[in-house]
Amino acid sequence: MNTHSKISQQLQKLGIELPIAGAPAAAYVMANQIDHIVYLSGHIAKQNGAVWIGKLGQNMSTTNGRLAARSVAIDLIASLQSHLGNLDRVKKIIKVTSLVNSTAEYTEHHLVTNGCSELLVEVFGDLGKHARSAFGVAQLPLGACVEIEMIVEVSD
Amino acid sequence: MNTHSKISQQLQKLGIELPIAGAPAAAYVMANQIDHIVYLSGHIAKQNGAVWIGKLGQNMSTTNGRLAARSVAIDLIASLQSHLGNLDRVKKIIKVTSLVNSTAEYTEHHLVTNGCSELLVEVFGDLGKHARSAFGVAQLPLGACVEIEMIVEVSD
Amino acid sequence: MNTHSKISQQLQKLGIELPIAGAPAAAYVMANQIDHIVYLSGHIAKQNGAVWIGKLGQNMSTTNGRLAARSVAIDLIASLQSHLGNLDRVKKIIKVTSLVNSTAEYTEHHLVTNGCSELLVEVFGDLGKHARSAFGVAQLPLGACVEIEMIVEVSD
Repeated sequence: MNTHSKISQQLQKLGIELPIAGAPAAAYVMANQIDHIVYLSGHIAKQNGAVWIGKLGQNMSTTNGRLAARSVAIDLIASLQSHLGNLDRVKKIIKVTSLVNSTAEYTEHHLVTNGCSELLVEVFGDLGKHARSAFGVAQLPLGACVEIEMIVEVSD
Repeated sequence: MNTHSKISQQLQKLGIELPIAGAPAAAYVMANQIDHIVYLSGHIAKQNGAVWIGKLGQNMSTTNGRLAARSVAIDLIASLQSHLGNLDRVKKIIKVTSLVNSTAEYTEHHLVTNGCSELLVEVFGDLGKHARSAFGVAQLPLGACVEIEMIVEVSD
Repeated sequence: MNTHSKISQQLQKLGIELPIAGAPAAAYVMANQIDHIVYLSGHIAKQNGAVWIGKLGQNMSTTNGRLAARSVAIDLIASLQSHLGNLDRVKKIIKVTSLVNSTAEYTEHHLVTNGCSELLVEVFGDLGKHARSAFGVAQLPLGACVEIEMIVEVSD
């Protein structure tokens, strides 16, 4: 990591250490750039390197869901760092789509997703403010509690 | 609202009064523009200012779901108006993603979503024709019956 | 179809015959192009021209779900062909979003979605590598087992 990067210094200040960026398990990529727009694949929540399994409204609290969403935001930033080389190239977080593994009764997907949204603003400031959607899905790959995808504008 | 705007006049002709645009409840924005593309956050259905609660296939008819989707389209247009100042700057409705709060048996998400799609074409004509996806989600924030996000091309 | 097209020849080599592209059932379009980006609407799985009904984890195996996702990829390519005239104009498959009709327990949405991802790479090679999200939805329009939408970069 470029230690002169403003965003890297901000991550350090926040006590956030980026994990090694994940690799896709099949015929797709974690980040795909077209012109100045980077599309990040849906990243599922992980804890200690393993899939973070859970279903909101059944066996996971909103507080923990929020922590999971925050950890996915960090993984998304790690993928961005791996793709861009330098996180200062981030011009704007455009859009976040947050898929929360929930029962048919749970209705706090927005609070879970705040864990991701707030981290992005802590790290990127105003550039981190994004459009977003959050909703409850029937289930996620490998039983993960949260999956989040992101679109980002970057500079050269 | 600019009363000389062609689209504002069309809204008036259709008897549609735009509500005050909603404000985000957290660290995100309702509309995010990158170059000439505006990403609108997922808007949940509201009725008389309160969240329009319901689950298709359980306690809400397709007819009412369709009305809810139509009302979300109006709220999306209100957010666009608030962002753009003048709705005549809309060049093309690009994409609509419609999340319908439904049981595991309900299969008319496309008919619900037509309430949004048809309103967009009534208001914007051919410019309102969009790509779209519609599907049933396990649950939505605050129990809303429908949530819709939109991508729009705009001029300067 | 342009039989001199490199991609058409690749489809032939793979033994894939493109179906007639589907038409939208309502006020939307199957493909919407803005500058050099084509947004394809969510396409639901079909078998012998009829909707391919099923729910993963209940009455459909992962193997069959994967075949369904592969068939949706072929339908998406047919819509692209219909929109572009010549599939050699595809510069990059940008993003795939795969909605798998699943129970609240099923956790192999990624394996189902591989049926689409792998077909795209077989047909387009490196240009077919995409960002993607895959997740389980409560239900899909008309009871379809899989719905997939796609974003594609194209040349003039």
